[in-house]
Amino acid sequence: MQVYLSGEIHTDWREQIIAACEGLDMSFSAPVTDHAASDDCGVAILGEEPDKFWHDRKGAQLNAIRTQTLLKSADIAIVRFGEKYKQWNAAFDAGYAAALGIPYITLHPAEHDHALKEVDGSANAMAREPEQVVEALAYIINGTMPTRHANAAE
Amino acid sequence: MQVYLSGEIHTDWREQIIAACEGLDMSFSAPVTDHAASDDCGVAILGEEPDKFWHDRKGAQLNAIRTQTLLKSADIAIVRFGEKYKQWNAAFDAGYAAALGIPYITLHPAEHDHALKEVDGSANAMAREPEQVVEALAYIINGTMPTRHANAAE
Amino acid sequence: MQVYLSGEIHTDWREQIIAACEGLDMSFSAPVTDHAASDDCGVAILGEEPDKFWHDRKGAQLNAIRTQTLLKSADIAIVRFGEKYKQWNAAFDAGYAAALGIPYITLHPAEHDHALKEVDGSANAMAREPEQVVEALAYIINGTMPTRHANAAE
Amino acid sequence: MQVYLSGEIHTDWREQIIAACEGLDMSFSAPVTDHAASDDCGVAILGEEPDKFWHDRKGAQLNAIRTQTLLKSADIAIVRFGEKYKQWNAAFDAGYAAALGIPYITLHPAEHDHALKEVDGSANAMAREPEQVVEALAYIINGTMPTRHANAAE
Amino acid sequence: MQVYLSGEIHTDWREQIIAACEGLDMSFSAPVTDHAASDDCGVAILGEEPDKFWHDRKGAQLNAIRTQTLLKSADIAIVRFGEKYKQWNAAFDAGYAAALGIPYITLHPAEHDHALKEVDGSANAMAREPEQVVEALAYIINGTMPTRHANAAE
Amino acid sequence: MQVYLSGEIHTDWREQIIAACEGLDMSFSAPVTDHAASDDCGVAILGEEPDKFWHDRKGAQLNAIRTQTLLKSADIAIVRFGEKYKQWNAAFDAGYAAALGIPYITLHPAEHDHALKEVDGSANAMAREPEQVVEALAYIINGTMPTRHANAAE
Amino acid sequence: MQVYLSGEIHTDWREQIIAACEGLDMSFSAPVTDHAASDDCGVAILGEEPDKFWHDRKGAQLNAIRTQTLLKSADIAIVRFGEKYKQWNAAFDAGYAAALGIPYITLHPAEHDHALKEVDGSANAMAREPEQVVEALAYIINGTMPTRHANAAE
Amino acid sequence: MQVYLSGEIHTDWREQIIAACEGLDMSFSAPVTDHAASDDCGVAILGEEPDKFWHDRKGAQLNAIRTQTLLKSADIAIVRFGEKYKQWNAAFDAGYAAALGIPYITLHPAEHDHALKEVDGSANAMAREPEQVVEALAYIINGTMPTRHANAAE
Repeated sequence: MQVYLSGEIHTDWREQIIAACEGLDMSFSAPVTDHAASDDCGVAILGEEPDKFWHDRKGAQLNAIRTQTLLKSADIAIVRFGEKYKQWNAAFDAGYAAALGIPYITLHPAEHDHALKEVDGSANAMAREPEQVVEALAYIINGTMPTRHANAAE
Repeated sequence: MQVYLSGEIHTDWREQIIAACEGLDMSFSAPVTDHAASDDCGVAILGEEPDKFWHDRKGAQLNAIRTQTLLKSADIAIVRFGEKYKQWNAAFDAGYAAALGIPYITLHPAEHDHALKEVDGSANAMAREPEQVVEALAYIINGTMPTRHANAAE
Repeated sequence: MQVYLSGEIHTDWREQIIAACEGLDMSFSAPVTDHAASDDCGVAILGEEPDKFWHDRKGAQLNAIRTQTLLKSADIAIVRFGEKYKQWNAAFDAGYAAALGIPYITLHPAEHDHALKEVDGSANAMAREPEQVVEALAYIINGTMPTRHANAAE
Repeated sequence: MQVYLSGEIHTDWREQIIAACEGLDMSFSAPVTDHAASDDCGVAILGEEPDKFWHDRKGAQLNAIRTQTLLKSADIAIVRFGEKYKQWNAAFDAGYAAALGIPYITLHPAEHDHALKEVDGSANAMAREPEQVVEALAYIINGTMPTRHANAAE
Repeated sequence: MQVYLSGEIHTDWREQIIAACEGLDMSFSAPVTDHAASDDCGVAILGEEPDKFWHDRKGAQLNAIRTQTLLKSADIAIVRFGEKYKQWNAAFDAGYAAALGIPYITLHPAEHDHALKEVDGSANAMAREPEQVVEALAYIINGTMPTRHANAAE
Repeated sequence: MQVYLSGEIHTDWREQIIAACEGLDMSFSAPVTDHAASDDCGVAILGEEPDKFWHDRKGAQLNAIRTQTLLKSADIAIVRFGEKYKQWNAAFDAGYAAALGIPYITLHPAEHDHALKEVDGSANAMAREPEQVVEALAYIINGTMPTRHANAAE
Repeated sequence: MQVYLSGEIHTDWREQIIAACEGLDMSFSAPVTDHAASDDCGVAILGEEPDKFWHDRKGAQLNAIRTQTLLKSADIAIVRFGEKYKQWNAAFDAGYAAALGIPYITLHPAEHDHALKEVDGSANAMAREPEQVVEALAYIINGTMPTRHANAAE
Repeated sequence: MQVYLSGEIHTDWREQIIAACEGLDMSFSAPVTDHAASDDCGVAILGEEPDKFWHDRKGAQLNAIRTQTLLKSADIAIVRFGEKYKQWNAAFDAGYAAALGIPYITLHPAEHDHALKEVDGSANAMAREPEQVVEALAYIINGTMPTRHANAAE
């Protein structure tokens, strides 16, 4: 299975998930997470723009080739909302996934619950911690229950 | 043409656009814009929930029947980001429209330009004022140029 | 909006909903609810079959022309599970709607909750009573809150 | 070819089919068939719920990531209805497959024939025994006729 | 509902069905049934061709604009195979409808049963006489059972 | 039927076709054909740009809302290549229609035959004169053969 | 590339093409071409039927799992019409491919040209001999021109 | 990732890009770029035509099997417009990609900017030189910034 890791780029949540999923039969993809590169790729490659709006546009559309291609080909998306910033691109990705019928799991702190209710409402699961995402992916792939709960039964 | 008016619900931008488009051959749709009703519809109709998370979930999923049905059947979406709040549902709608190939116009102040660069990058146009949206719609439907510029030519 | 009323045919829940929705801008469709006609239409029209299996097949496939055409063209489906019988066709319709991205509301007593957890899990709402479906539809179309809760606010 | 084995989880029909298909060029997928894990995965991973309805919801939606992803990517589905329980998720899967144009074979005892007539009516074949499914799959892949009938001809 | 009447053009089966369906809420469409016009429309409009193959090609592709547009927008197709000729365009239309998920009813004499087994196998019903098609359509639209069988019950 | 008239904007071919089709049950749509308005609509409505490239971009994307919406909803497209200019937008529209399965008729002089061979190769018909398009549309809608050829037969 | 070889099963045209394409980067698929097995697979596996119509139905629907799965996943289809029989399944496959946008090449003698004009009209090429299909496939994959014409140029 | 290289065939831009991308995890596809073969493949394989129009048609439709199959399966398309010729097939490919949601990058000199404004307006990026396309692809795949700009930051 292909898993696309969308959203916040200022903490190492992607690395945590990828490392903890070692050994599972899945591959991971993500946007470019180097903030400066992501902002400036357009003008660095396609030519400078004096107007910041078009500077951003060139970068955003170049990044979109990567992100929309990877998201479209994913079986599952994880959409992370961190504590800071607007993070509208994460919500955009969630809507994109929803429209294409790609199931996604949100990952965010409780303080965002109300503001994210529509985004969570179209998600298949909401997690607070990367560890929960890892457990969810292990379950989805192999049916493995998390160790701490392995004896739980109805 | 069907136009869906997505996003911010605290100012009268929808009313401005609809009033100014009177006489054009288009119809408008929108989410429920009564904030309290939108938040509480789920529990009011389907039963109370002690946990705020599920209170919100019931409302969000009921609203989604309306919003996703109207958005899917729209020819054009206008996605408004106001000055306050996270407004992740607006970005979600933009992603949803993008994935379905529904063209959309964003409407937001300059201060959001950088944070909205991905959302703007998949849009067909970005406007600052409702008046510009009205002019764009009039042009799209009838080819009418705005009065102040009617003599512009290459 | 087009609303398809799927499932149980032994009580008058469809009539209740349709009557109570009078005045709302929506139209309703449904399978043939005359049980005998639904069972025997195939052989009555296309010729007798000595084997009950093919008798049923002819009827089921003729009914499917109606039901799948109406379901595919619906904006919303209501899927009713009554207290008796297997009602596998109702669950089939729910899966069909889910795959096509048509939002649906389930309508069933609490005793079915566990057995219907997958069907409810892909639904946008679960109701216990036809009255709740009516309120949900009124809200979806007009944003009208139910009278008993009209003062609720966050 | 990818074959998805949907439905009843209380007998070893999946193991029978998979074992007997050894050597055929096909791969098999299935939902998590550990009943307790399937019921409790949601709360075990994503957090406890005091209300059984939401306990079930969390599990159902987590399972749906697995089941809908595997079903969507299957070339063929086998949908098994056992002798007991409501098994609405099996009928849901059949409807889901039908809407996506994925051919499926039902597997059930004669006592369910009438109740499953709509589900059978959209199927490409109905089998009584796992052995027949194995023979059907061997024929579909290799054109091999079953030994007992290998001499049959028009 | 839109009904597309495909196939044989040498008898008046279309006229029989349309006349007998008067009063039902459905509309009918069909290919051009004037044989000479259908054969020669291409060259008559777009210019003569010395080679019969291209003469036919021009006509076939012009007719295809009509037939494929009408077939794609139909809710139901009736595919008639008469007693004579190859009628490959009728089988082509059946395959086209099947691929798009448009349900169709075949109409043909028993002598074609074996040769049409694949075409019938993807159909929702097979009728021998136009009268049966009329009864099927009346049932699909209104749930009306044919008079001669109105008292049949399980 | 909806007919979209794409391509060259310097002659009155659209007006000729629309006038000659009066009385036929079809409606026509087209891009904005006022050259100056089409070029300058973006900056006139959404704000001036010092760089001609972005001036053009704003206009092109605003026009695309109109053209792609109308083309997507058309049953048939007519794509006209005139004698002058690059007319890449006409070829773009032809490719767009081809990918969506919308049949189109090209309209161009013989001198373009070789350069348009790929565009003609995906078309259903190629016409030299607007009169031929009118005859083709009349035939497609009503089966009417052109007067000058009404007696042609195989 | 995947090539599906549809149609006539009484001559060795498939073997000729496959043998001559050795070394090209393509794989071939086909229906079951053992006539007796194809006719009787349904009842041999799923149980005898006294009525020939249902005998055929069971076989046709089992074969359809194979043929429609393979056809849907093909990049190109070759549709062969031999000199004898109705061969409606070949025309059905052509319509199926056309509706899905899968390009196909027909292969048939000149005597069928007029009767196949609609089927040829939606094809990308028409060939008389298997050798031409081989040359076409070699060209499509590698751009290789046939030896006898290698010096041809505009 | 699969990259389709569409358009101009008279310079070595494809070879430049492919050589410079060595080591990146992507594969390249393209139309047949031997001009004479591309023009004459149809008649060389399928039989001579006295009329140049049908000579071209046979070639164009044979080429279309290759080009549309490769374009449909591409993740990204590069569409090159050279300095000479009409190049309508390049614009056709751009429209085809746009309709399918395949992101594309245009590659053309500044003199075409105005004539290509619609084609550029649906593109994700516009480049002047093959080197820029290489840098864009390297960035899309690996997030690598071009050397000359590697230190750029917001």
